[in-house]
Amino acid sequence: MTLFYLVPAFGVLALLYTFIKSAWVTKQDAGSDRMKEIARYIAEGAMAFLKAEYKILTYFVIIAGLLLAFMGYSNPKSSPMIAVAFVIGAFFSALAGFIGMRIATKANVRTTEAAKTSLSKALNVSFGGGSVMGLGVSGLAVLGLGGLFIILKMIFAPDSLANSEEMERTIEVLTGFSLGAESIALFARVGGGIYTKAADVGADLVGKVEAGIPEDDPRNPATIADNVGDNVGDVAGMGADLFGSYVATVLATMVLGRETGDMSAILLPMMIAGVGIVLSIIGTLFVRISDSVGNSTAAVQRALNMGNWGSIVLTAVACYFLVHNILPESLTLRGYVFTRDGVFYAILVGLAVGTLMSMITEYYTAMGKRPVMSIIRQSSTGHATNIIGGLAVGMESTTLPIIVLAGGIWGSYECAGLYGVAIAAAGMMATTAMQLAIDAFGPIADNAGGIAEMCELPKEVRERTDILDAVGNTTAATGKGFAIASAALTALALFAAFVGVAGITGIDIYKANVLACLFVGGMIPFIFSSLAIRAVGKAAMSMVEEVRRQFRTIPGIMEGTGKPEYDKCVAISTEASIRMMVAPGAIAIISPLIIGFMPGLGAEALGGFLAGATVSGVLMGMFQNNAGGAWDNAKKSFEKGVEINGEIYYKKSEPHKASVTGDTVGDPFKDTSGPSMNILIKLMSIVALVIAPTIANISKNKQATVSVKKETTITAVVATPAPAAVIAQ
Amino acid sequence: MTLFYLVPAFGVLALLYTFIKSAWVTKQDAGSDRMKEIARYIAEGAMAFLKAEYKILTYFVIIAGLLLAFMGYSNPKSSPMIAVAFVIGAFFSALAGFIGMRIATKANVRTTEAAKTSLSKALNVSFGGGSVMGLGVSGLAVLGLGGLFIILKMIFAPDSLANSEEMERTIEVLTGFSLGAESIALFARVGGGIYTKAADVGADLVGKVEAGIPEDDPRNPATIADNVGDNVGDVAGMGADLFGSYVATVLATMVLGRETGDMSAILLPMMIAGVGIVLSIIGTLFVRISDSVGNSTAAVQRALNMGNWGSIVLTAVACYFLVHNILPESLTLRGYVFTRDGVFYAILVGLAVGTLMSMITEYYTAMGKRPVMSIIRQSSTGHATNIIGGLAVGMESTTLPIIVLAGGIWGSYECAGLYGVAIAAAGMMATTAMQLAIDAFGPIADNAGGIAEMCELPKEVRERTDILDAVGNTTAATGKGFAIASAALTALALFAAFVGVAGITGIDIYKANVLACLFVGGMIPFIFSSLAIRAVGKAAMSMVEEVRRQFRTIPGIMEGTGKPEYDKCVAISTEASIRMMVAPGAIAIISPLIIGFMPGLGAEALGGFLAGATVSGVLMGMFQNNAGGAWDNAKKSFEKGVEINGEIYYKKSEPHKASVTGDTVGDPFKDTSGPSMNILIKLMSIVALVIAPTIANISKNKQATVSVKKETTITAVVATPAPAAVIAQ
Repeated sequence: MTLFYLVPAFGVLALLYTFIKSAWVTKQDAGSDRMKEIARYIAEGAMAFLKAEYKILTYFVIIAGLLLAFMGYSNPKSSPMIAVAFVIGAFFSALAGFIGMRIATKANVRTTEAAKTSLSKALNVSFGGGSVMGLGVSGLAVLGLGGLFIILKMIFAPDSLANSEEMERTIEVLTGFSLGAESIALFARVGGGIYTKAADVGADLVGKVEAGIPEDDPRNPATIADNVGDNVGDVAGMGADLFGSYVATVLATMVLGRETGDMSAILLPMMIAGVGIVLSIIGTLFVRISDSVGNSTAAVQRALNMGNWGSIVLTAVACYFLVHNILPESLTLRGYVFTRDGVFYAILVGLAVGTLMSMITEYYTAMGKRPVMSIIRQSSTGHATNIIGGLAVGMESTTLPIIVLAGGIWGSYECAGLYGVAIAAAGMMATTAMQLAIDAFGPIADNAGGIAEMCELPKEVRERTDILDAVGNTTAATGKGFAIASAALTALALFAAFVGVAGITGIDIYKANVLACLFVGGMIPFIFSSLAIRAVGKAAMSMVEEVRRQFRTIPGIMEGTGKPEYDKCVAISTEASIRMMVAPGAIAIISPLIIGFMPGLGAEALGGFLAGATVSGVLMGMFQNNAGGAWDNAKKSFEKGVEINGEIYYKKSEPHKASVTGDTVGDPFKDTSGPSMNILIKLMSIVALVIAPTIANISKNKQATVSVKKETTITAVVATPAPAAVIAQ
Repeated sequence: MTLFYLVPAFGVLALLYTFIKSAWVTKQDAGSDRMKEIARYIAEGAMAFLKAEYKILTYFVIIAGLLLAFMGYSNPKSSPMIAVAFVIGAFFSALAGFIGMRIATKANVRTTEAAKTSLSKALNVSFGGGSVMGLGVSGLAVLGLGGLFIILKMIFAPDSLANSEEMERTIEVLTGFSLGAESIALFARVGGGIYTKAADVGADLVGKVEAGIPEDDPRNPATIADNVGDNVGDVAGMGADLFGSYVATVLATMVLGRETGDMSAILLPMMIAGVGIVLSIIGTLFVRISDSVGNSTAAVQRALNMGNWGSIVLTAVACYFLVHNILPESLTLRGYVFTRDGVFYAILVGLAVGTLMSMITEYYTAMGKRPVMSIIRQSSTGHATNIIGGLAVGMESTTLPIIVLAGGIWGSYECAGLYGVAIAAAGMMATTAMQLAIDAFGPIADNAGGIAEMCELPKEVRERTDILDAVGNTTAATGKGFAIASAALTALALFAAFVGVAGITGIDIYKANVLACLFVGGMIPFIFSSLAIRAVGKAAMSMVEEVRRQFRTIPGIMEGTGKPEYDKCVAISTEASIRMMVAPGAIAIISPLIIGFMPGLGAEALGGFLAGATVSGVLMGMFQNNAGGAWDNAKKSFEKGVEINGEIYYKKSEPHKASVTGDTVGDPFKDTSGPSMNILIKLMSIVALVIAPTIANISKNKQATVSVKKETTITAVVATPAPAAVIAQ
């Protein structure tokens, strides 16, 4: 199986691409001194946040690492090495965030400069920045996972078969990598989400509403913080999120693959990820427009769609050959027999689910479609009806995606059992690099527009960056659809892996303690969202007060002669977001530990808890993302003017004011709590997977004790035949 | 077991009380001609709605009854008699709504008249009306269920034992009664909820905001519809809801009791309900204040609390004796052995859960407590932050109740297995008559205030009715906490009953199709809420247009010389609410049928669906009820003036306007979609229970077919030992 050595090679290839493309972006002209100055402020603010964040996370990593080392030491099925894997995972995740942030804060100003020439040039620079991010993230993931697997296999299972205990231990240790990646991702997502919305809401409330100055006006002290926020939340947060998903999906498939007893089933998900990198690089080549199209939103959208569809189709084709060359004719997992054709069909199911989810998300959040139009109409009777309309759209928007997702779970299971569910997620995630490039390009364009505004560049520059930004908003919405779909399938794959590692044969919600934990799990996304939303509210309030103070005390600030203290606002966002990301983060990590180790609960109850959290998290994520996206575009529609009952309304009209309320409510929904749901459900599943062998150990010891006292009970337990549950289905 | 004959006698006793108390209320003075006229408008509007609603429901009952008769006919374990039980259940539920509405529309104007004399007299009349409603509902439930059981037992199982097939058939047919009750309840709750909020929002938007006239002003054409709405939604809707819960809880406990093979376990829940009626009558005697206390809100609250606590404590004591005199020393249910002491402790757990849930709900929605204060503070920065604050409070408010509920499930199971979970719910519901009396008193007082306003009575009258109304708002909030807790436990008891009747041994969410249905089930409360909220929005818009038209076209309407066309507004609310209750109602009834009968899904998948719907429904119910309640009281706080950052704000200030937005958003949350969640989850469970024998039949036939082809599979299925799953726990 020398193919295993190929996997990190794909990672190196991706990093090589990142390096070359990054050099190309850096080489582009960064414009005038004023532009460079503004860009430097943004870059410094972003780095200041990362530094502060990583500092606090270092303590977390050390403490969690020590606990993991202890747990690994005391369990024969694990090893203290799991702490090393954890630290590497955390480091790689942080590095992925750093790379993304660095290139984004370089590409933004260069996009502005390029927009002076043409739309096509601006697209090249901004999408170039995005693809550096995309391939950097996926390169690190594949290199880290593939490389670490080879090293761990050498240490623990040099010549062992897939179904050996040594191999089980190898992969168990590897879960540490995923845990590290996902925990950093959670803090990055939540912290970044609080940061960006605190700055945004704060800047808008005082700047636009009270002082009456436009967005991105250099006189607004919070404007730099606002632009930093785009990078911190949408670039670094999103990057860490997808890095975590990517790693977790591949890992879950490997755990299940090992149980088939065939090495090739472990190799397949890694190879799909590796080949996916090459296909994403090819996909980026499709993303270009000719100089002759002029300022056309549709052309940019078409170019990005081409890249996206290109890599999806290429992935489907490549998977056919990979599956047929790597897997044997048929495999067996926990008594379920499936063929390699079935595995290929499961991958197709995964790709279809991802595509459909993106399309439905776009429908619910796009301008001109029925949902957004309904919110616009309801803005005419005031703030309250606008809010009611948005909430109703958000709730409704869960229906179709859930049916698609449920169909995907069932369908991929029918194709290839639990391995099918996991490989469906892996197939979907194969195009991560491309997805991320498309996603990261949005905030770069957004920043480019901000720089154009702050430097008072000619109108056509802002027009071009606005086109890119508008397309970026659409891709951000579809990206969220993709992210939640991948998170749901990943969580389920981890869930299936957990069942195996914890040594239970099913999760029966008919048992009272399992059912009780299903409720508790379902509640977690609610309290998590509540904390995240409230944090944005509080942080925005501090920002408002600081901006008001500066307007009051700095002489000449409104005339443009006094210089605002940008760094004070940056510091407020940084400090508030880092302080307030702790509580929700702690809930995500600690609650599965409590359920797993509480006497009377244990592995099966923890399974119920995870199921409840996943269902409720997916629903709350969709509800909040889509309500927020729809409110946002309802507000944006007023900028061009909308017709309600025969009258045309523009900006500053009463209905427009109502739509601004909806947009402000939607901000923390769609950029803080909504997207955090993805990581929340994945992270809790990974924590469960990491502690699974320890729980299994405890329950084995307890059962042994019980059997001394009451032999009958233990017989009944043993009598439950493991595969029967699956066959009975 | 002659005690069985005692059960309907308790029902007759309650109805006797209803009759006498109702005569007493009717005998009270109804005031001046103007008061009588206004009261007649309200009563006529309410009856017009009931008539229109019952007309459409008659068609539904006939069609559903025919389908049920056919299903009962084709299944040897059921009988066409189930259709008769269904029709009786539907009729009794409608009758309960009618009785409540009739007494409420008499008690309202008499309360106004009594308020001219003293607060204590006004309390007597309004609470008298409430207790007629409470005892009417519980009397009909006990009489219907108890009487029908005796008749059905005579027909199907005259001399059979509890664990005989005949007895199983008897109780299966009895589920028809519960299905009838619960389906009428759903339509009453949803239709009433849309009605009341459409009228309320419509009357406020044009009257208060556009025309600048106070609430309940007789010049507002929608004001009668608004007052009708209180009766339609809060009286008839709530009554039908609790009637359904009451019946479903007792029935679920009977189904599980039958499986113990001991007749006494079937008798116990009916006897608890019967004795609960007597205790509630005693409890109502505690609700009185002396004439000397003057206008004291605290005194009224204390009197109601005395009544409530009195009946809870009495129930606990009575249950001790009932359990010890009816049940044998120990019982066995599906392999789980439990004692009668355990059953008593489970009842205590149920009472504790109900009490705690009410208390927590009160904390989250009461004036002066942290959650409402936080919304008030966030109103100072505008509409958007008020909304964000309310949503955050609503989400947070799910945490403690869910932990209490989960603890209750687990605790009552530890006490007495699944029978414990069911009997905990039954214990909690024993005080239904009292709860309902306290709940129904609120809208009566609210109406009394409206009549005082419309007839321009002296200020002190309105002051006294306002005190009753304020207390009524608190009891409405705690009543919702009680209702959702009882619905959750009832749904779980039905869920456990379903597992037994469907002939499965567990619900393993580790199976792909079960897991997929868990997601679909979780989605149902979201789409249901979306439809309900949207319906309110649309109906309110029609109301706004009608009121605007009348203000425009009726000469002298604003000067009080032209007479508004109240009936037009009543007709709009009636028509809109009845039209729009169909879609959400259909979802609740049809979706379990689809899951249950779709090939490849079946009983276990339906179990997963129910679990998902219950978890998500309970969470969404709490979230919406509590957010709505908190917004409402945040707004009300401004009426007395609130201090934010050292400044005092009153009505008409900017923060107050923001709080009005929150209140308007909260209206459909707390009075339409939120409380409908209770019935949604119960109704879907009952539908599942009714079709369970048919599903079991289909799967038996299929397994028989399969066994011809593949004998190995069927062996594996049979090899799973039924009780092992429970013991292994």
